[in-house]
Amino acid sequence: MRVLVNGRPSECVDVRDRGFQYGDGVFTTLRVSGGKAMLWSRHLGRLADACSRLGIRYPGDEALAADLRLLGSEAAEGVIKIQITRGIGGRGYRPVADGEPTRVVSLHPAPEFPRAYYRSGVSVTRCRTPLGINTALAGIKHTNRLEQVLGRGEWADEFQEGLMCDTEGFLVEGTMSNVFLVKAGRLETPLIDRCGVNGVMRRLVLEIARSQGVEVHERRVRLEELASADEVFLTNCVIGIWPVARLADRSYAVGEVTRMLSARVDDRQRRVLPE
Amino acid sequence: MRVLVNGRPSECVDVRDRGFQYGDGVFTTLRVSGGKAMLWSRHLGRLADACSRLGIRYPGDEALAADLRLLGSEAAEGVIKIQITRGIGGRGYRPVADGEPTRVVSLHPAPEFPRAYYRSGVSVTRCRTPLGINTALAGIKHTNRLEQVLGRGEWADEFQEGLMCDTEGFLVEGTMSNVFLVKAGRLETPLIDRCGVNGVMRRLVLEIARSQGVEVHERRVRLEELASADEVFLTNCVIGIWPVARLADRSYAVGEVTRMLSARVDDRQRRVLPE
Repeated sequence: MRVLVNGRPSECVDVRDRGFQYGDGVFTTLRVSGGKAMLWSRHLGRLADACSRLGIRYPGDEALAADLRLLGSEAAEGVIKIQITRGIGGRGYRPVADGEPTRVVSLHPAPEFPRAYYRSGVSVTRCRTPLGINTALAGIKHTNRLEQVLGRGEWADEFQEGLMCDTEGFLVEGTMSNVFLVKAGRLETPLIDRCGVNGVMRRLVLEIARSQGVEVHERRVRLEELASADEVFLTNCVIGIWPVARLADRSYAVGEVTRMLSARVDDRQRRVLPE
Repeated sequence: MRVLVNGRPSECVDVRDRGFQYGDGVFTTLRVSGGKAMLWSRHLGRLADACSRLGIRYPGDEALAADLRLLGSEAAEGVIKIQITRGIGGRGYRPVADGEPTRVVSLHPAPEFPRAYYRSGVSVTRCRTPLGINTALAGIKHTNRLEQVLGRGEWADEFQEGLMCDTEGFLVEGTMSNVFLVKAGRLETPLIDRCGVNGVMRRLVLEIARSQGVEVHERRVRLEELASADEVFLTNCVIGIWPVARLADRSYAVGEVTRMLSARVDDRQRRVLPE
């Protein structure tokens, strides 16, 4: 792993950093391949939005692009993680007005997922840990991730992902992915207006689906509705699209809509995913 | 500020630390004065509980006591902050089983609060930022504190504290304190079973009240009930007890129950609070 902290090689952050003290920051994770940072401008756009909602100063596209170059991403195949915190300062929880943010950009090896995950799908469990509802934080990929840590702690290697519901029992997302259902050719995905992450890949998939004439619904989804879905799949910018093969006692085939969307996403990602 | 990271002087934590990556940790804050760390065993007990609930290995009372000595707390007047994270490791959100925790213990100058805060009370606002409900995290003083950061960001210096409600509108706590109401001689405080922090001072105040024959109720409290309270006060281990003098358009006198509890807490704190 290679890391830049505020543009300089370092593996250290100040203990006073509000990212460490309070999880007071945001992040994003994306693929780099063949000299390209995939969906780069979308990731920056979401980072800037997330910063804006939390009142953190966004360090700017230029600084992040310079970090990317310094990390040698042109020659790299891997994953870039960008984390932006509110930096040092303020008294207690009180955020300092217009403080200097901390940015941490790191380059990681590309994860190698089995081809079977893409061809025949993954096994998924249901997490008992609920997601709290809070419109003030909903959609933001922030670094308050204890719910996801507890959710992911519920299984070891027997599943590839776990689905999480909000405290009212509505399906929201996976611990590290967004979730989609296909019913009678219609694409459905949970609203992320009360909790959950506004995934860059989620957004891309919705756009591609609409552009391909697939009817799309963002709505509240009960977990039980998965049982009657024809296809289920998971998305994030590192995995792309994973069809779900098994959830509880239900099996799913990799269906037509999932295949079509996977192919289009692969095109957009310039085939960085396994063939 | 003097800081020990895993028992050694340092101001740096590894960028991979899960405390920085995910807010994956817990903390506590306490007073030191006259060679005593106030309510030390209670703080350690709560830390150990919090670690246990999150599956973080508690570093042990001995290690923390040694840190305290190394910081020279015998000769210090100030505030100790102890932060324990899940440390480095695991894949993504997945927590590593029985990993090595990171402990950060720091010594800060004692804050100097105006005497008027104790004698005539403080001004309090109501925060718009809600607290999400999640029994998996309720009570734990963890480092996922974005809700408190946003809440505290709603005012500057015109108030001393802001009260926060859960997403159903029930009063829970202040951004950095627990809250109590006195009605007809009876002491009431919000339940912290769905969100909020299990404050060490909150617990102590409840115990003292019971031992003094005050009727005590932990229950769901609507924000509007504050208007009909005879006395309102705030607690944490750094401030002790702050009577509330003003909230919205309501003024409160510093009442009998608040005075009695403040005196008893001062005794327990060996008069580290202003006289």
